[in-house]
Amino acid sequence: MSRTCLAVVLAAGDSTRMKSSMSKVLHPVGGRPMIAHVMASLAQSDISDVALVLGRDAERVAAAARVDGLAVESFLQTERRGTGHAVLMAEAAISRGYDQILVAYGDVPLITAAPLKAARAALDTGADVAVIGFHTENPTGYGRLLVENGELVAIREEKDASDEERLVTWCNSGLLAINGDKALDLLKRIGNSNAKGEFYLTDIVEIARSLGGRVVAVDAPESELTGCNNRAELAYIEAIWQQRRRHEVMISGVSMIAPETVFLSYDTVIGQDAVIEPNVVFGPGVTVEGGAVIHAFSHLEGCHVAAGATVGPFARLRPGANLAEGAKVGNFCEVKKAEIGKGAKVNHLTYIGDAVVGAETNIGAGTITCNYDGVNKHETRIGAGAFIGSNSSLVAPVSIGDGALIASGSVITEDVPADALAFGRARQEVKAGRAALVRERNLAIKAAKKTKS
Amino acid sequence: MSRTCLAVVLAAGDSTRMKSSMSKVLHPVGGRPMIAHVMASLAQSDISDVALVLGRDAERVAAAARVDGLAVESFLQTERRGTGHAVLMAEAAISRGYDQILVAYGDVPLITAAPLKAARAALDTGADVAVIGFHTENPTGYGRLLVENGELVAIREEKDASDEERLVTWCNSGLLAINGDKALDLLKRIGNSNAKGEFYLTDIVEIARSLGGRVVAVDAPESELTGCNNRAELAYIEAIWQQRRRHEVMISGVSMIAPETVFLSYDTVIGQDAVIEPNVVFGPGVTVEGGAVIHAFSHLEGCHVAAGATVGPFARLRPGANLAEGAKVGNFCEVKKAEIGKGAKVNHLTYIGDAVVGAETNIGAGTITCNYDGVNKHETRIGAGAFIGSNSSLVAPVSIGDGALIASGSVITEDVPADALAFGRARQEVKAGRAALVRERNLAIKAAKKTKS
Amino acid sequence: MSRTCLAVVLAAGDSTRMKSSMSKVLHPVGGRPMIAHVMASLAQSDISDVALVLGRDAERVAAAARVDGLAVESFLQTERRGTGHAVLMAEAAISRGYDQILVAYGDVPLITAAPLKAARAALDTGADVAVIGFHTENPTGYGRLLVENGELVAIREEKDASDEERLVTWCNSGLLAINGDKALDLLKRIGNSNAKGEFYLTDIVEIARSLGGRVVAVDAPESELTGCNNRAELAYIEAIWQQRRRHEVMISGVSMIAPETVFLSYDTVIGQDAVIEPNVVFGPGVTVEGGAVIHAFSHLEGCHVAAGATVGPFARLRPGANLAEGAKVGNFCEVKKAEIGKGAKVNHLTYIGDAVVGAETNIGAGTITCNYDGVNKHETRIGAGAFIGSNSSLVAPVSIGDGALIASGSVITEDVPADALAFGRARQEVKAGRAALVRERNLAIKAAKKTKS
Repeated sequence: MSRTCLAVVLAAGDSTRMKSSMSKVLHPVGGRPMIAHVMASLAQSDISDVALVLGRDAERVAAAARVDGLAVESFLQTERRGTGHAVLMAEAAISRGYDQILVAYGDVPLITAAPLKAARAALDTGADVAVIGFHTENPTGYGRLLVENGELVAIREEKDASDEERLVTWCNSGLLAINGDKALDLLKRIGNSNAKGEFYLTDIVEIARSLGGRVVAVDAPESELTGCNNRAELAYIEAIWQQRRRHEVMISGVSMIAPETVFLSYDTVIGQDAVIEPNVVFGPGVTVEGGAVIHAFSHLEGCHVAAGATVGPFARLRPGANLAEGAKVGNFCEVKKAEIGKGAKVNHLTYIGDAVVGAETNIGAGTITCNYDGVNKHETRIGAGAFIGSNSSLVAPVSIGDGALIASGSVITEDVPADALAFGRARQEVKAGRAALVRERNLAIKAAKKTKS
Repeated sequence: MSRTCLAVVLAAGDSTRMKSSMSKVLHPVGGRPMIAHVMASLAQSDISDVALVLGRDAERVAAAARVDGLAVESFLQTERRGTGHAVLMAEAAISRGYDQILVAYGDVPLITAAPLKAARAALDTGADVAVIGFHTENPTGYGRLLVENGELVAIREEKDASDEERLVTWCNSGLLAINGDKALDLLKRIGNSNAKGEFYLTDIVEIARSLGGRVVAVDAPESELTGCNNRAELAYIEAIWQQRRRHEVMISGVSMIAPETVFLSYDTVIGQDAVIEPNVVFGPGVTVEGGAVIHAFSHLEGCHVAAGATVGPFARLRPGANLAEGAKVGNFCEVKKAEIGKGAKVNHLTYIGDAVVGAETNIGAGTITCNYDGVNKHETRIGAGAFIGSNSSLVAPVSIGDGALIASGSVITEDVPADALAFGRARQEVKAGRAALVRERNLAIKAAKKTKS
Repeated sequence: MSRTCLAVVLAAGDSTRMKSSMSKVLHPVGGRPMIAHVMASLAQSDISDVALVLGRDAERVAAAARVDGLAVESFLQTERRGTGHAVLMAEAAISRGYDQILVAYGDVPLITAAPLKAARAALDTGADVAVIGFHTENPTGYGRLLVENGELVAIREEKDASDEERLVTWCNSGLLAINGDKALDLLKRIGNSNAKGEFYLTDIVEIARSLGGRVVAVDAPESELTGCNNRAELAYIEAIWQQRRRHEVMISGVSMIAPETVFLSYDTVIGQDAVIEPNVVFGPGVTVEGGAVIHAFSHLEGCHVAAGATVGPFARLRPGANLAEGAKVGNFCEVKKAEIGKGAKVNHLTYIGDAVVGAETNIGAGTITCNYDGVNKHETRIGAGAFIGSNSSLVAPVSIGDGALIASGSVITEDVPADALAFGRARQEVKAGRAALVRERNLAIKAAKKTKS
């Protein structure tokens, strides 16, 4: 059954307890803003229209909420008068007429499509309202879901609950779905005659029932409904998210020796039979093909690692790094915007930026591509089967031909033809017995310093 | 109500199970000796006088126990005859006359001021002794606190407890406060007619009651009372301490993507809206201003990071590193005893030691300040807006003027005036076709080696 | 009592859910294949003969299963017809006549000697079969051990269990020991008249009892019996293994500030009073002597660190690195196949490979031993008390004598005698005022680029 659904996403919170210079829904989880996670789950729930209720940082939040497959309309909430009031900010959208209205929150980012679909399906069975609940060991502080004969008869706030009701461990998440035909009427009936003078969305349960409607509750895992009010909770949400993703990645056939030390981004792709050692951080935009090995203490973002390539330990791949099959980037090496050819080796203490390194080329320890002149970035092109001696400086723009050899410690400022040998270093001189004299002089300087102080 | 209080801190343990070459109370938690944590909590409990009972490593322990605001007197315990006996080592101090005597332990470092204050307050209500207890899920092995009508009637050791008493989960921590007027008398009445022939401080409960005194128990979280007897327990204590501090830091407005991988020191200061990525170690003496970003895999000690500065990934800031606003220290860079000016960049594979780097100066990849001649350390001064080409060696003492340019791969041994361009590198030479010859020769050497072996 | 025992180890699984290109028993735990862990525990249980039942990757598994003290015979299982059938693949070995037969599994690698010995001891008391069980909070899915009067009367599969039987939390691990005289007869009586048509080893319980034999169950910790069916379970097994080893290491007198971030290998040896900071990875073959300090973010494999030596932070020791007493290898340094003499220092951004560094020698920041010419590896020998200036390249084969000095930024291609001073760098030139011109030119290039695009 196909029915239209508008999701109203509340994202106007002040985030005071976050103590942050930006709206909390902009804080990242798995490398992208919280709000984008909510939107992605909506998109996966066969929802296409979203009314986004914004407050702080409205423009940035609206931008962060853009997700493929969703048409998003923004509504600015200027007053803070409760969740019922907040949802009605989107009245113009709601009143366009949808089969269903779903209310979600920008700061509840772990929600997946499953409970959203379940709430929608519950409406299909004739319910006017379907509340998403969760079971918890410690319900203190939450509104309890009171169910009789399969119907949700009330959401009882902690302070109003009887001793018996407080034993209930099924709690209200705040997320709910409403029959679209009745939504506007029900929402408008919510009053504010309570201690705080606020409009509470949860009152919709009682209202719907008083009008003869049926209200039900559907269940979701507690972890999906964790909200974010301070940075400790943000870290907790990140932890759950990471755990979830690591598990999926491992089940798909990737080995992680210590998954709890591997940090994934929302778009990390890792192929079957890849091995990820402890302490690896994946920033956004990384794809690792099957059979690649990412050694310990590696940091990758915006890069591609092909089959059989190895990275680290202690390697940093920055955006635009592209390792071909069997390439190696080793310890204390940084690669940025560079193609590393098949079987090429960049193994020790090297910086490769704005470069192309040919297949089977060996880059010696301590090599630097000098790609920046203080103003412009320039390219270094190194052919296949070349050998760059250790501690060399390749001053870009410069080209090193196939099979060329660069002597260790050279500064290369001009192109080197294929199969040529290039030097750029001074001849060694030796002063016999001079070391002792130098040492004596240095010790004398030290003694003089001490006398002064 | 102001009352004087002497804390007697027992720190004479042999630490046998630590299998350590030093007293266990010297082992660090959060970067400072366990004993210093205890002293700091005493200082926060309005206590000013401490009698420190020492055994092993007495001098080092006394030195480590120095904390602002506390007058500490040391007493040497030469025999090990039980806790009651140990407290009496401080008889000379106790007999000077204090309103209250508090007994604490050098190897229970997680104790905070709250339960110490609670025990002191209990004496104010007329109790002669106030024992600090803790609730635990697994009381096996602990003395149980038996309470009747609000009074502590006994501390029952495991071996003497009835089945019913063993179900009690409120346990004795060993910490307690004693009415100062009665303390010496009570302590001296403790006998040693028991299996081990030791003087048990816990006997004071029974003694005080037998003299008509009132004894009470106050509660503290179990985590605060964790004692340290081996290195696994030391690690557990460190874990609880780190968790506690990380939580405080996050709640204050600092983002940690994976707090469980961030290690703080006792004096780490991090400003609001700073971001700490996974795998960051803060040694002692670090301050990070708000809005700074510490990227993954960074190691900081004794340094300052100003607002908007970024560090890492893979950066090491050592004592005396001082990053001004917006400065950047990037991957595989080490900075020691150096000022990095506003907006200056030290981004790749660089060592900056004993140096001043001016504002907006760019330090190229692989730059080394050669600050050590084997005997003395020398300074490198680099002006503002300068550009140091990659792989350069700056041989200190040396000065580079404002706006100067150093060509890549240069060895700079003499001062460079402002706006000058300096070279210190050999001219490149190219031998056409020579690479193939070299390769053939190398292969011949390899073949010869194989023939030999 | 000495009795002969043959262990039959089932290691023929297809590992489908591992989604792996190799047999699951080859996947490493603590740096060595799972199967080797099982074999090591057998060797510690006074077992000398093993019948290894192989399927996938038979040769590699057989090779990985070689452990000192065990005579291993391989049997190929070509059909998959249940565990009872699998054990009978080893019929030729079983029929040679052993006092006892023990059945273990290649994918249950955490098993220790204790329960294996307990099962064997149970046979000594007259049991025909001794099943190893484990207690678990969540028995769902496991066969329950039903015990009456100290005898195991049945292993009840989940699907056949009554509600009461499902409450039993003592479960079947699959491991068991059989009286050697009766083993072959009992095994051959196992039938396959069940839904799947498979021969189930667990049927042996019922069979032995029907013949008047006694069957018992012995207990083992749940953690030791964790099986591996996918990579998430592999990570879980690794986690338990690491926890176990870390605890042993700490109890032996080694400090770990954050043990959960230290990764050990099966053969890691660390001496008393060593300190291991957070985030250290020990690959196979590492020995660290007492009193050494391994700082954070270090990666060690195949190396030796002597007493009082310090490593890291951010150090990598590769196979053949051998640090003498008091030696230091510091940040962003890699050492491979090299002796680092007493008190020698390799502190910053350095690569030392195929080298000998004498006592008290100082290797400056950014030094590279250029050990590879693209074909052969060559050696660098540095004497005692030498000083290698920063950013030097030592082109091997090359020898630096005792007490020699190498000027910063030198390329050294020829031997340097003792106490000599060697240079290999260009003289500095300065072009006054030229920096501004260069900058203007670069800005013009930038402007031109923008115009084009």
